[in-house]
Amino acid sequence: VTEVSLLRNLARRLPAIGDDCAIVPHGREDLLLKVDMLIEHVHFRREQRSASDVGYRALARALSDIAAMGGRPRWALVGLALPPWATRRWVNGFYDGLLKLAASYGVEVVGGDLSHADQLVADVFLAGVAPRGRALRRSTAGAGDVLYVSGPLGHREWRFAPRLELGESLRRDRRVTACMDLSDGIALDLHRMMFASGVEARLDDLPVAKGADLSRALHYGEDYELLFARRGAWRNPPPGVVAIGAVHSTRQPGRVTLSGAVVPPVGYDHLKQA
Amino acid sequence: VTEVSLLRNLARRLPAIGDDCAIVPHGREDLLLKVDMLIEHVHFRREQRSASDVGYRALARALSDIAAMGGRPRWALVGLALPPWATRRWVNGFYDGLLKLAASYGVEVVGGDLSHADQLVADVFLAGVAPRGRALRRSTAGAGDVLYVSGPLGHREWRFAPRLELGESLRRDRRVTACMDLSDGIALDLHRMMFASGVEARLDDLPVAKGADLSRALHYGEDYELLFARRGAWRNPPPGVVAIGAVHSTRQPGRVTLSGAVVPPVGYDHLKQA
Repeated sequence: VTEVSLLRNLARRLPAIGDDCAIVPHGREDLLLKVDMLIEHVHFRREQRSASDVGYRALARALSDIAAMGGRPRWALVGLALPPWATRRWVNGFYDGLLKLAASYGVEVVGGDLSHADQLVADVFLAGVAPRGRALRRSTAGAGDVLYVSGPLGHREWRFAPRLELGESLRRDRRVTACMDLSDGIALDLHRMMFASGVEARLDDLPVAKGADLSRALHYGEDYELLFARRGAWRNPPPGVVAIGAVHSTRQPGRVTLSGAVVPPVGYDHLKQA
Repeated sequence: VTEVSLLRNLARRLPAIGDDCAIVPHGREDLLLKVDMLIEHVHFRREQRSASDVGYRALARALSDIAAMGGRPRWALVGLALPPWATRRWVNGFYDGLLKLAASYGVEVVGGDLSHADQLVADVFLAGVAPRGRALRRSTAGAGDVLYVSGPLGHREWRFAPRLELGESLRRDRRVTACMDLSDGIALDLHRMMFASGVEARLDDLPVAKGADLSRALHYGEDYELLFARRGAWRNPPPGVVAIGAVHSTRQPGRVTLSGAVVPPVGYDHLKQA
Protein backbone atom coordinates (compact mmCIF):
# COMPACT_ATOMS: atom_id res chain seq x y z
CA VAL A 1 0.00 0.00 0.00
CA THR A 2 1.36 3.43 -0.84
CA GLU A 3 0.81 6.36 1.45
CA VAL A 4 -0.91 8.40 -1.26
CA SER A 5 -3.56 5.80 -2.05
CA LEU A 6 -4.13 5.15 1.63
CA LEU A 7 -4.51 8.84 2.31
CA ARG A 8 -7.04 9.20 -0.50
CA ASN A 9 -8.89 6.29 0.95
CA LEU A 10 -8.85 7.75 4.46
CA ALA A 11 -9.70 11.25 3.31
CA ARG A 12 -13.15 9.98 2.41
CA ARG A 13 -13.65 8.74 5.96
CA LEU A 14 -11.94 11.40 8.04
CA PRO A 15 -12.66 15.13 8.09
CA ALA A 16 -10.06 17.85 7.82
CA ILE A 17 -7.21 15.91 6.25
CA GLY A 18 -5.43 18.32 3.95
CA ASP A 19 -4.16 21.24 5.98
CA ASP A 20 -0.90 21.02 7.87
CA CYS A 21 -2.75 20.70 11.16
CA ALA A 22 -6.27 19.86 12.24
CA ILE A 23 -8.22 22.95 13.35
CA VAL A 24 -10.73 22.61 16.18
CA PRO A 25 -12.51 25.52 17.89
CA HIS A 26 -12.13 25.77 21.66
CA GLY A 27 -13.14 28.81 23.68
CA ARG A 28 -12.11 32.00 21.90
CA GLU A 29 -9.33 30.34 19.96
CA ASP A 30 -8.77 27.56 17.47
CA LEU A 31 -6.61 24.68 18.57
CA LEU A 32 -4.17 23.47 15.92
CA LEU A 33 -3.42 19.77 16.41
CA LYS A 34 -0.64 17.80 14.78
CA VAL A 35 0.91 14.36 15.10
CA ASP A 36 4.17 13.50 13.36
CA MET A 37 6.12 10.23 13.41
CA LEU A 38 9.90 9.99 13.12
CA ILE A 39 10.99 6.40 12.49
CA GLU A 40 14.40 4.71 12.43
CA HIS A 41 15.43 3.39 8.97
CA VAL A 42 12.62 5.48 7.40
CA HIS A 43 13.55 8.99 8.55
CA PHE A 44 17.00 8.53 10.05
CA ARG A 45 19.82 6.07 10.70
CA ARG A 46 21.23 6.07 14.17
CA GLU A 47 24.80 5.77 12.89
CA GLN A 48 24.33 9.10 11.12
CA ARG A 49 22.43 11.13 13.71
CA SER A 50 23.05 11.90 17.34
CA ALA A 51 20.26 11.30 19.84
CA SER A 52 19.96 15.05 20.28
CA ASP A 53 19.61 15.51 16.50
CA VAL A 54 16.76 13.00 16.43
CA GLY A 55 14.96 14.70 19.32
CA TYR A 56 15.39 18.11 17.67
CA ARG A 57 14.08 16.93 14.33
CA ALA A 58 11.09 15.03 15.81
CA LEU A 59 9.74 18.26 17.29
CA ALA A 60 10.95 20.64 14.57
CA ARG A 61 8.83 18.99 11.88
CA ALA A 62 5.65 19.41 13.92
CA LEU A 63 6.60 23.01 14.76
CA SER A 64 6.88 23.73 11.05
CA ASP A 65 3.27 22.64 10.58
CA ILE A 66 2.09 25.02 13.29
CA ALA A 67 4.16 27.77 11.63
CA ALA A 68 2.48 27.03 8.29
CA MET A 69 -0.89 27.91 9.80
CA GLY A 70 0.33 31.03 11.57
CA GLY A 71 -0.21 29.41 14.95
CA ARG A 72 1.63 29.61 18.23
CA PRO A 73 2.81 26.21 19.50
CA ARG A 74 1.93 25.50 23.13
CA TRP A 75 2.02 21.89 24.33
CA ALA A 76 3.75 18.73 23.19
CA LEU A 77 3.51 15.06 24.12
CA VAL A 78 6.01 12.46 23.00
CA GLY A 79 5.36 8.79 22.31
CA LEU A 80 8.66 6.92 22.26
CA ALA A 81 9.08 3.24 21.34
CA LEU A 82 12.60 2.13 22.21
CA PRO A 83 14.59 -0.65 20.52
CA PRO A 84 17.14 -2.69 22.50
CA TRP A 85 20.04 -0.44 21.45
CA ALA A 86 18.48 2.67 23.01
CA THR A 87 20.36 3.27 26.24
CA ARG A 88 19.31 5.66 28.95
CA ARG A 89 22.06 7.95 27.70
CA TRP A 90 20.50 7.95 24.22
CA VAL A 91 17.06 8.75 25.61
CA ASN A 92 18.54 11.60 27.64
CA GLY A 93 20.24 12.93 24.52
CA PHE A 94 16.97 12.69 22.61
CA TYR A 95 15.21 14.75 25.27
CA ASP A 96 18.12 17.22 25.38
CA GLY A 97 17.56 18.04 21.71
CA LEU A 98 13.80 18.07 21.97
CA LEU A 99 13.45 20.04 25.22
CA LYS A 100 15.95 22.70 24.20
CA LEU A 101 14.06 23.35 20.97
CA ALA A 102 10.74 23.28 22.86
CA ALA A 103 11.99 25.85 25.37
CA SER A 104 13.25 28.18 22.65
CA TYR A 105 9.71 28.44 21.23
CA GLY A 106 7.82 28.43 24.53
CA VAL A 107 6.47 24.91 24.11
CA GLU A 108 5.76 22.86 27.24
CA VAL A 109 6.39 19.14 26.97
CA VAL A 110 3.57 17.97 29.23
CA GLY A 111 3.51 14.21 28.85
CA GLY A 112 4.23 11.14 26.85
CA ASP A 113 4.27 7.39 26.59
CA LEU A 114 7.17 4.93 26.62
CA SER A 115 7.16 1.50 25.06
CA HIS A 116 9.52 -0.76 23.12
CA ALA A 117 9.81 -1.89 19.51
CA ASP A 118 12.37 -3.37 17.11
CA GLN A 119 13.15 0.05 15.66
CA LEU A 120 12.93 3.47 17.24
CA VAL A 121 9.62 5.32 16.77
CA ALA A 122 9.30 8.89 18.05
CA ASP A 123 5.81 10.28 17.75
CA VAL A 124 5.36 13.94 18.58
CA PHE A 125 1.97 15.37 19.27
CA LEU A 126 1.87 19.15 19.19
CA ALA A 127 -0.99 21.51 20.03
CA GLY A 128 -0.91 25.16 19.08
CA VAL A 129 -3.37 28.03 19.11
CA ALA A 130 -4.58 30.72 16.72
CA PRO A 131 -7.32 33.35 17.01
CA ARG A 132 -10.67 31.81 16.02
CA GLY A 133 -11.07 31.49 12.27
CA ARG A 134 -7.70 33.13 11.54
CA ALA A 135 -5.40 30.12 10.99
CA LEU A 136 -3.83 30.10 7.53
CA ARG A 137 -5.11 27.36 5.20
CA ARG A 138 -3.82 25.95 1.96
CA SER A 139 -7.13 25.89 0.08
CA THR A 140 -7.78 29.63 0.00
CA ALA A 141 -5.35 31.03 -2.57
CA GLY A 142 -7.07 33.19 -5.22
CA ALA A 143 -6.42 34.21 -8.84
CA GLY A 144 -4.22 37.31 -8.91
CA ASP A 145 -2.34 36.48 -5.71
CA VAL A 146 1.44 36.71 -5.67
CA LEU A 147 3.29 33.55 -4.60
CA TYR A 148 6.19 33.65 -2.16
CA VAL A 149 8.65 31.33 -0.45
CA SER A 150 10.52 32.13 2.75
CA GLY A 151 13.98 31.13 1.53
CA PRO A 152 16.12 29.23 -0.98
CA LEU A 153 15.06 25.69 -1.87
CA GLY A 154 16.82 22.40 -2.50
CA HIS A 155 19.09 22.07 0.47
CA ARG A 156 18.20 19.91 3.42
CA GLU A 157 19.19 21.06 6.84
CA TRP A 158 18.63 18.50 9.59
CA ARG A 159 18.38 21.10 12.36
CA PHE A 160 16.30 23.61 10.41
CA ALA A 161 14.67 26.55 12.19
CA PRO A 162 10.86 26.33 11.97
CA ARG A 163 9.46 29.60 10.54
CA LEU A 164 7.25 30.36 13.51
CA GLU A 165 7.80 34.11 13.73
CA LEU A 166 7.22 34.55 10.02
CA GLY A 167 4.11 32.34 10.16
CA GLU A 168 2.57 34.48 12.86
CA SER A 169 3.37 37.69 11.01
CA LEU A 170 1.79 36.28 7.84
CA ARG A 171 -1.34 35.37 9.79
CA ARG A 172 -1.61 38.98 11.00
CA ASP A 173 -1.14 40.31 7.44
CA ARG A 174 -4.74 40.36 6.20
CA ARG A 175 -3.55 40.14 2.60
CA VAL A 176 -1.99 36.70 2.97
CA THR A 177 -4.58 34.27 1.61
CA ALA A 178 -2.98 30.80 1.91
CA CYS A 179 0.09 29.15 3.42
CA MET A 180 1.73 25.74 3.89
CA ASP A 181 5.17 24.42 4.72
CA LEU A 182 7.39 22.77 2.11
CA SER A 183 8.06 19.21 3.20
CA ASP A 184 7.71 17.23 -0.05
CA GLY A 185 9.26 19.70 -2.50
CA ILE A 186 7.62 22.77 -4.01
CA ALA A 187 6.61 20.89 -7.21
CA LEU A 188 4.31 18.60 -5.24
CA ASP A 189 3.36 20.96 -2.42
CA LEU A 190 2.49 23.91 -4.69
CA HIS A 191 0.42 21.53 -6.81
CA ARG A 192 -1.47 20.56 -3.65
CA MET A 193 -2.12 24.19 -2.68
CA MET A 194 -3.29 25.10 -6.19
CA PHE A 195 -5.45 21.98 -6.47
CA ALA A 196 -7.07 22.60 -3.08
CA SER A 197 -7.69 26.23 -4.08
CA GLY A 198 -9.01 25.39 -7.58
CA VAL A 199 -6.39 27.52 -9.35
CA GLU A 200 -3.02 27.20 -11.11
CA ALA A 201 0.46 28.65 -10.48
CA ARG A 202 2.75 30.28 -13.00
CA LEU A 203 6.28 30.56 -11.66
CA ASP A 204 8.86 32.99 -13.02
CA ASP A 205 11.81 32.01 -10.96
CA LEU A 206 12.85 29.97 -7.92
CA PRO A 207 15.52 30.75 -5.33
CA VAL A 208 17.91 27.80 -5.52
CA ALA A 209 20.03 27.02 -2.47
CA LYS A 210 23.85 26.99 -2.71
CA GLY A 211 25.04 23.60 -3.87
CA ALA A 212 21.61 22.63 -5.22
CA ASP A 213 20.23 22.77 -8.76
CA LEU A 214 16.77 23.54 -10.11
CA SER A 215 15.67 19.90 -10.06
CA ARG A 216 16.54 19.62 -6.38
CA ALA A 217 14.87 22.95 -5.63
CA LEU A 218 11.68 21.67 -7.26
CA HIS A 219 11.54 18.07 -6.08
CA TYR A 220 14.03 17.32 -3.33
CA GLY A 221 11.77 18.23 -0.41
CA GLU A 222 12.36 18.71 3.30
CA ASP A 223 13.00 22.41 2.79
CA TYR A 224 10.69 23.39 5.66
CA GLU A 225 10.34 26.86 4.21
CA LEU A 226 6.89 28.48 4.02
CA LEU A 227 5.04 28.75 0.71
CA PHE A 228 2.29 31.35 0.67
CA ALA A 229 0.00 33.48 -1.46
CA ARG A 230 -0.74 37.17 -0.96
CA ARG A 231 -3.14 39.65 -2.54
CA GLY A 232 -0.71 42.14 -4.00
CA ALA A 233 3.07 42.34 -3.83
CA TRP A 234 5.00 43.78 -0.90
CA ARG A 235 7.23 46.76 -1.43
CA ASN A 236 9.48 45.43 1.30
CA PRO A 237 8.93 41.73 1.89
CA PRO A 238 10.14 40.26 5.22
CA PRO A 239 13.84 39.22 5.26
CA GLY A 240 14.51 36.13 3.13
CA VAL A 241 11.07 36.15 1.49
CA VAL A 242 11.15 35.91 -2.33
CA ALA A 243 8.34 36.34 -4.88
CA ILE A 244 8.27 33.35 -7.26
CA GLY A 245 5.18 33.84 -9.44
CA ALA A 246 1.43 34.34 -9.46
CA VAL A 247 -1.87 32.50 -9.09
CA HIS A 248 -4.21 32.28 -12.10
CA SER A 249 -7.70 30.98 -12.69
CA THR A 250 -7.67 27.77 -14.70
CA ARG A 251 -9.49 24.80 -16.17
CA GLN A 252 -6.73 22.60 -14.74
CA PRO A 253 -6.67 23.11 -10.97
CA GLY A 254 -3.31 22.19 -9.51
CA ARG A 255 -1.32 22.95 -12.66
CA VAL A 256 2.13 24.44 -12.04
CA THR A 257 4.37 25.94 -14.74
CA LEU A 258 7.86 27.44 -14.52
CA SER A 259 8.75 29.89 -17.31
CA GLY A 260 5.93 28.29 -19.29
CA ALA A 261 7.06 24.67 -18.88
CA VAL A 262 4.81 22.28 -16.95
CA VAL A 263 6.27 21.14 -13.62
CA PRO A 264 5.18 17.57 -12.80
CA PRO A 265 3.74 17.21 -9.29
CA VAL A 266 6.29 14.68 -8.08
CA GLY A 267 8.63 14.49 -5.12
CA TYR A 268 12.06 13.02 -4.57
CA ASP A 269 11.01 9.37 -4.35
CA HIS A 270 9.35 9.53 -7.74
CA LEU A 271 12.36 11.17 -9.32
CA LYS A 272 14.60 8.39 -8.05
CA GLN A 273 12.29 5.80 -9.56
CA ALA A 274 12.11 7.62 -12.89
CA VAL B 1 16.63 0.12 30.19
CA THR B 2 13.43 -0.59 32.07
CA GLU B 3 10.41 1.65 31.72
CA VAL B 4 10.27 2.35 35.45
CA SER B 5 13.85 3.61 35.70
CA LEU B 6 13.44 5.64 32.52
CA LEU B 7 10.24 7.19 33.82
CA ARG B 8 11.93 8.14 37.10
CA ASN B 9 14.71 9.66 35.11
CA LEU B 10 12.34 11.61 32.88
CA ALA B 11 10.10 12.68 35.74
CA ARG B 12 12.93 14.90 36.95
CA ARG B 13 13.04 16.63 33.57
CA LEU B 14 9.39 16.81 32.57
CA PRO B 15 6.52 18.37 34.49
CA ALA B 16 3.19 16.71 35.14
CA ILE B 17 4.14 13.05 34.65
CA GLY B 18 2.04 11.10 37.11
CA ASP B 19 -1.62 11.68 36.37
CA ASP B 20 -3.41 9.73 33.66
CA CYS B 21 -3.40 12.76 31.36
CA ALA B 22 -1.54 16.04 31.20
CA ILE B 23 -3.68 18.98 32.33
CA VAL B 24 -3.24 22.36 30.62
CA PRO B 25 -5.49 25.38 31.10
CA HIS B 26 -7.06 26.88 27.98
CA GLY B 27 -9.86 29.42 28.05
CA ARG B 28 -12.44 28.51 30.68
CA GLU B 29 -11.59 24.84 30.62
CA ASP B 30 -8.69 22.52 31.22
CA LEU B 31 -7.49 20.47 28.29
CA LEU B 32 -6.64 16.87 29.15
CA LEU B 33 -3.98 15.53 26.80
CA LYS B 34 -2.95 11.91 26.37
CA VAL B 35 -0.78 9.89 24.01
CA ASP B 36 -0.89 6.09 24.04
CA MET B 37 1.06 3.64 21.86
CA LEU B 38 -0.25 0.22 20.80
CA ILE B 39 2.55 -1.88 19.31
CA GLU B 40 2.56 -5.22 17.50
CA HIS B 41 4.33 -8.04 19.42
CA VAL B 42 4.23 -5.86 22.57
CA HIS B 43 0.49 -5.23 22.97
CA PHE B 44 -1.04 -7.57 20.41
CA ARG B 45 -0.32 -10.29 17.85
CA ARG B 46 -2.00 -9.89 14.53
CA GLU B 47 -2.87 -13.58 14.31
CA GLN B 48 -4.93 -13.17 17.47
CA ARG B 49 -6.68 -9.85 16.88
CA SER B 50 -8.74 -8.49 14.04
CA ALA B 51 -7.85 -5.12 12.57
CA SER B 52 -11.05 -3.72 14.05
CA ASP B 53 -10.09 -5.07 17.50
CA VAL B 54 -6.73 -3.31 17.28
CA GLY B 55 -8.35 -0.01 16.25
CA TYR B 56 -10.89 -0.29 19.05
CA ARG B 57 -8.27 -1.01 21.69
CA ALA B 58 -5.88 1.73 20.54
CA LEU B 59 -8.53 4.38 21.22
CA ALA B 60 -10.20 2.68 24.20
CA ARG B 61 -7.04 2.82 26.33
CA ALA B 62 -6.71 6.57 25.83
CA LEU B 63 -10.43 7.05 26.50
CA SER B 64 -9.99 5.27 29.83
CA ASP B 65 -7.39 7.85 30.84
CA ILE B 66 -9.78 10.70 30.08
CA ALA B 67 -12.48 8.86 32.07
CA ALA B 68 -10.08 8.54 35.02
CA MET B 69 -9.89 12.34 35.24
CA GLY B 70 -13.62 12.90 34.84
CA GLY B 71 -13.07 14.52 31.45
CA ARG B 72 -15.06 14.55 28.25
CA PRO B 73 -13.06 13.28 25.25
CA ARG B 74 -13.23 15.54 22.20
CA TRP B 75 -10.56 15.12 19.50
CA ALA B 76 -8.25 12.32 18.44
CA LEU B 77 -5.31 12.03 16.05
CA VAL B 78 -3.81 8.74 14.99
CA GLY B 79 -0.19 8.05 14.08
CA LEU B 80 0.00 4.76 12.20
CA ALA B 81 3.25 3.05 11.11
CA LEU B 82 2.43 0.18 8.76
CA PRO B 83 4.48 -2.98 8.25
CA PRO B 84 4.53 -4.75 4.87
CA TRP B 85 1.72 -7.13 5.88
CA ALA B 86 -0.76 -4.29 6.52
CA THR B 87 -3.09 -4.25 3.52
CA ARG B 88 -5.52 -1.52 2.70
CA ARG B 89 -8.23 -3.86 3.95
CA TRP B 90 -6.48 -4.14 7.30
CA VAL B 91 -6.15 -0.37 7.61
CA ASN B 92 -9.83 0.03 6.79
CA GLY B 93 -10.69 -2.53 9.46
CA PHE B 94 -8.51 -0.69 11.96
CA TYR B 95 -10.36 2.55 11.26
CA ASP B 96 -13.72 0.74 11.41
CA GLY B 97 -13.02 -0.28 14.99
CA LEU B 98 -11.54 3.05 15.98
CA LEU B 99 -14.08 5.34 14.31
CA LYS B 100 -17.09 3.41 15.59
CA LEU B 101 -15.83 3.69 19.16
CA ALA B 102 -14.97 7.36 18.62
CA ALA B 103 -18.48 8.10 17.32
CA SER B 104 -20.13 6.36 20.26
CA TYR B 105 -18.40 8.77 22.67
CA GLY B 106 -18.65 11.90 20.55
CA VAL B 107 -14.94 11.98 19.68
CA GLU B 108 -13.88 13.53 16.36
CA VAL B 109 -10.89 11.94 14.66
CA VAL B 110 -9.43 15.09 13.15
CA GLY B 111 -6.09 14.04 11.75
CA GLY B 112 -3.14 11.72 11.76
CA ASP B 113 0.10 10.62 10.22
CA LEU B 114 0.96 7.56 8.15
CA SER B 115 4.37 5.97 7.85
CA HIS B 116 5.90 2.52 7.66
CA ALA B 117 7.88 0.32 10.02
CA ASP B 118 8.80 -3.33 10.51
CA GLN B 119 6.03 -3.81 13.04
CA LEU B 120 2.72 -2.04 13.39
CA VAL B 121 2.68 0.99 15.68
CA ALA B 122 -0.60 2.76 16.39
CA ASP B 123 -0.23 5.92 18.39
CA VAL B 124 -3.40 7.61 19.53
CA PHE B 125 -3.40 11.17 20.71
CA LEU B 126 -6.55 12.17 22.53
CA ALA B 127 -7.61 15.58 23.84
CA GLY B 128 -10.47 15.98 26.29
CA VAL B 129 -11.87 18.80 28.37
CA ALA B 130 -12.90 19.39 31.97
CA PRO B 131 -14.06 22.51 33.82
CA ARG B 132 -11.04 24.52 34.97
CA GLY B 133 -9.40 23.02 38.05
CA ARG B 134 -11.99 20.24 38.37
CA ALA B 135 -10.24 17.28 36.71
CA LEU B 136 -9.80 14.32 39.08
CA ARG B 137 -6.21 13.66 40.15
CA ARG B 138 -4.54 10.70 41.77
CA SER B 139 -2.51 12.62 44.35
CA THR B 140 -5.39 14.08 46.35
CA ALA B 141 -6.82 11.16 48.37
CA GLY B 142 -7.10 11.93 52.09
CA ALA B 143 -7.11 9.97 55.35
CA GLY B 144 -10.66 8.83 56.16
CA ASP B 145 -11.75 8.51 52.51
CA VAL B 146 -13.55 5.38 51.39
CA LEU B 147 -11.94 3.51 48.46
CA TYR B 148 -14.04 2.20 45.57
CA VAL B 149 -13.61 0.32 42.31
CA SER B 150 -16.09 0.44 39.43
CA GLY B 151 -16.32 -3.34 38.87
CA PRO B 152 -14.81 -6.79 39.41
CA LEU B 153 -11.07 -7.20 38.85
CA GLY B 154 -8.81 -9.80 37.32
CA HIS B 155 -10.41 -10.43 33.96
CA ARG B 156 -9.13 -8.84 30.81
CA GLU B 157 -11.60 -7.80 28.18
CA TRP B 158 -10.05 -6.69 24.89
CA ARG B 159 -13.02 -4.53 23.89
CA PHE B 160 -13.66 -3.05 27.31
CA ALA B 161 -16.04 -0.12 27.73
CA PRO B 162 -14.18 2.97 29.00
CA ARG B 163 -15.91 4.32 32.14
CA LEU B 164 -16.56 7.76 30.72
CA GLU B 165 -20.04 8.33 32.10
CA LEU B 166 -19.01 7.20 35.56
CA GLY B 167 -15.88 9.36 35.40
CA GLU B 168 -17.89 12.47 34.63
CA SER B 169 -20.39 11.74 37.41
CA LEU B 170 -17.52 11.25 39.89
CA ARG B 171 -16.03 14.58 38.83
CA ARG B 172 -19.38 16.27 39.58
CA ASP B 173 -19.60 14.56 43.00
CA ARG B 174 -17.73 17.06 45.18
CA ARG B 175 -16.92 14.32 47.71
CA VAL B 176 -14.78 12.31 45.31
CA THR B 177 -11.18 13.27 46.13
CA ALA B 178 -9.01 11.16 43.77
CA CYS B 179 -9.37 8.85 40.80
CA MET B 180 -7.30 6.82 38.31
CA ASP B 181 -7.88 3.96 35.92
CA LEU B 182 -6.60 0.45 36.63
CA SER B 183 -4.19 -0.49 33.88
CA ASP B 184 -1.34 -2.20 35.77
CA GLY B 185 -3.32 -4.04 38.45
CA ILE B 186 -4.79 -2.58 41.64
CA ALA B 187 -1.78 -3.68 43.74
CA LEU B 188 0.54 -1.39 41.80
CA ASP B 189 -1.96 1.32 40.84
CA LEU B 190 -3.40 1.75 44.35
CA HIS B 191 0.16 1.92 45.67
CA ARG B 192 0.80 4.75 43.21
CA MET B 193 -2.33 6.65 44.28
CA MET B 194 -1.51 6.24 47.97
CA PHE B 195 2.14 7.18 47.46
CA ALA B 196 1.25 10.27 45.44
CA SER B 197 -1.27 11.25 48.13
CA GLY B 198 1.10 10.54 51.07
CA VAL B 199 -1.28 8.04 52.70
CA GLU B 200 -1.89 4.27 52.94
CA ALA B 201 -4.78 1.97 51.99
CA ARG B 202 -6.35 -0.73 54.09
CA LEU B 203 -8.49 -3.03 51.98
CA ASP B 204 -11.22 -5.25 53.44
CA ASP B 205 -12.27 -7.05 50.32
CA LEU B 206 -11.91 -7.03 46.53
CA PRO B 207 -14.51 -7.90 43.89
CA VAL B 208 -12.94 -10.77 41.95
CA ALA B 209 -14.13 -11.37 38.38
CA LYS B 210 -15.63 -14.72 37.38
CA GLY B 211 -12.89 -17.12 36.38
CA ALA B 212 -10.18 -15.06 38.15
CA ASP B 213 -8.62 -15.50 41.58
CA LEU B 214 -7.40 -13.01 44.16
CA SER B 215 -3.86 -12.96 42.78
CA ARG B 216 -5.14 -12.05 39.32
CA ALA B 217 -7.51 -9.46 40.78
CA LEU B 218 -4.55 -7.82 42.54
CA HIS B 219 -1.79 -8.06 39.95
CA TYR B 220 -3.07 -9.09 36.52
CA GLY B 221 -3.77 -5.57 35.23
CA GLU B 222 -5.60 -4.22 32.19
CA ASP B 223 -8.87 -4.09 34.12
CA TYR B 224 -9.62 -0.53 32.93
CA GLU B 225 -11.97 -0.06 35.85
CA LEU B 226 -11.84 3.19 37.84
CA LEU B 227 -10.26 3.28 41.29
CA PHE B 228 -11.30 6.25 43.40
CA ALA B 229 -11.49 7.74 46.88
CA ARG B 230 -14.48 9.54 48.38
CA ARG B 231 -15.06 11.47 51.58
CA GLY B 232 -17.78 9.35 53.19
CA ALA B 233 -19.59 6.26 51.95
CA TRP B 234 -22.54 6.35 49.57
CA ARG B 235 -25.86 4.93 50.68
CA ASN B 236 -26.52 3.95 47.08
CA PRO B 237 -23.32 3.77 45.06
CA PRO B 238 -23.62 3.90 41.25
CA PRO B 239 -24.30 0.53 39.57
CA GLY B 240 -21.29 -1.79 39.69
CA VAL B 241 -19.35 0.37 42.14
CA VAL B 242 -17.99 -1.52 45.17
CA ALA B 243 -16.38 -0.21 48.38
CA ILE B 244 -13.07 -1.99 48.99
CA GLY B 245 -11.50 -0.27 52.01
CA ALA B 246 -10.34 3.03 53.43
CA VAL B 247 -7.50 5.55 53.34
CA HIS B 248 -5.39 6.09 56.48
CA SER B 249 -2.63 8.46 57.46
CA THR B 250 0.72 6.70 57.65
CA ARG B 251 4.46 6.84 58.09
CA GLN B 252 4.75 4.60 55.02
CA PRO B 253 3.11 6.43 52.10
CA GLY B 254 2.00 4.00 49.41
CA ARG B 255 1.49 1.04 51.74
CA VAL B 256 -1.41 -1.23 50.83
CA THR B 257 -2.79 -4.02 53.04
CA LEU B 258 -5.61 -6.49 52.44
CA SER B 259 -7.20 -7.94 55.59
CA GLY B 260 -4.05 -6.85 57.41
CA ALA B 261 -1.54 -8.52 55.04
CA VAL B 262 0.83 -6.31 53.06
CA VAL B 263 0.15 -6.31 49.30
CA PRO B 264 3.39 -5.90 47.33
CA PRO B 265 3.22 -3.13 44.69
CA VAL B 266 3.93 -5.37 41.72
CA GLY B 267 2.19 -6.05 38.43
CA TYR B 268 1.84 -9.08 36.20
CA ASP B 269 5.33 -8.98 34.68
CA HIS B 270 6.97 -9.10 38.08
CA LEU B 271 4.75 -11.99 39.19
CA LYS B 272 5.79 -13.99 36.15
CA GLN B 273 9.45 -13.40 36.99
CA ALA B 274 8.96 -14.33 40.67
